[in-house]
Amino acid sequence: MSVTPRDNAAFEAGIKLGALYHQFVGTPVSMSTVESLERAIAASIGVQPYVRSITVHIDRKMIEDSLSSFGYTELKGPMLKVDGVIRYDRYETHVGIQYKDGYPLMFIKDIREV
Amino acid sequence: MSVTPRDNAAFEAGIKLGALYHQFVGTPVSMSTVESLERAIAASIGVQPYVRSITVHIDRKMIEDSLSSFGYTELKGPMLKVDGVIRYDRYETHVGIQYKDGYPLMFIKDIREV
Amino acid sequence: MSVTPRDNAAFEAGIKLGALYHQFVGTPVSMSTVESLERAIAASIGVQPYVRSITVHIDRKMIEDSLSSFGYTELKGPMLKVDGVIRYDRYETHVGIQYKDGYPLMFIKDIREV
Amino acid sequence: MSVTPRDNAAFEAGIKLGALYHQFVGTPVSMSTVESLERAIAASIGVQPYVRSITVHIDRKMIEDSLSSFGYTELKGPMLKVDGVIRYDRYETHVGIQYKDGYPLMFIKDIREV
Repeated sequence: MSVTPRDNAAFEAGIKLGALYHQFVGTPVSMSTVESLERAIAASIGVQPYVRSITVHIDRKMIEDSLSSFGYTELKGPMLKVDGVIRYDRYETHVGIQYKDGYPLMFIKDIREV
Repeated sequence: MSVTPRDNAAFEAGIKLGALYHQFVGTPVSMSTVESLERAIAASIGVQPYVRSITVHIDRKMIEDSLSSFGYTELKGPMLKVDGVIRYDRYETHVGIQYKDGYPLMFIKDIREV
Repeated sequence: MSVTPRDNAAFEAGIKLGALYHQFVGTPVSMSTVESLERAIAASIGVQPYVRSITVHIDRKMIEDSLSSFGYTELKGPMLKVDGVIRYDRYETHVGIQYKDGYPLMFIKDIREV
Repeated sequence: MSVTPRDNAAFEAGIKLGALYHQFVGTPVSMSTVESLERAIAASIGVQPYVRSITVHIDRKMIEDSLSSFGYTELKGPMLKVDGVIRYDRYETHVGIQYKDGYPLMFIKDIREV
């Protein structure tokens, strides 16, 4: 079976999550800049092809717990909670990044024909 | 229809390409270090889950053409040619990154049940 | 001569510019998200130790000229114009990143005892 | 006092450490690829201007302790031990990155006129 629109909908969703994670993990962040960073990450991924929506939440509690004596830390994978909808042709892939069992997991929640 | 192994095979392949691109673009590189960088990129992506094979080629001509007076440049998207096989359950996704029409494209070449 | 506060003022300024450049180059950006990205970069570097001020300007003309058919591009080094003041002990290092002769240059404009 | 060669020697050393850290933190790594990654990081930073030598050591114990069930982890700041010599004009800056008190610290060990 050749490559289908549904395959590409899943593939494009994966690209966006891999890009988001590896572009932004390591970014310096503090309690006062976390909101600006969330918005910039969502805006940045949102300009890429096929992205219908993307929301980014960074865990404030984890930031607080890892603040250095200088009052800042770096964005780490486990701090990220992401929900996104990527549409390719007639297929919408609903995906997420979420911390589970010690690791940030990327997963497909649903693929819908629309 | 719920999420299938084939969907996940395509999704996981996308994650790897997005990660590769955004982790390594910007890395300083010269003609004498390009081979070491190719190997390290392939090794790094190769340790991730579901990766069966990955080859990375960086265009020497483009490096030469963009060398600064200091004799180095940075890895740019168009320099990358990547071929990878990601296997999830019984599905092998064959993917690539290649420069075309002025842009580095990521695409699925094939998905096979094995 | 042992390491002086002035040495550390210059060193810390270098760290911030190297970090900024390699953290954010490659970030997807479009004409509608460029402002959000400028703010997030400045906020992110601004939380690091010793940073007194930082302004980030991304060249709109260069973004427009490199937009793909999907209406976005990636942040590239030459698009960046940065001005920063890093203070260590009694020394203020005024630094910048600016495009010149085909390359993004990082340089010290001035070091002042304050 | 205007900017001196010694100032630039310290500044250039800072640029290299900031670049190294933010380019490579987040890279997937396992026990079998750690050596390749060390070499590639050193090679990559070594091509930049003014770098006389650079050695990169990644802590194997920390990698082992943070392996996921998939047998890999990501390069984290605390895993890095770096020693570098940056020469600008007649000044050699000896710098390092080392884990201390819970954080990866970047510091000047010595600046020598040579």
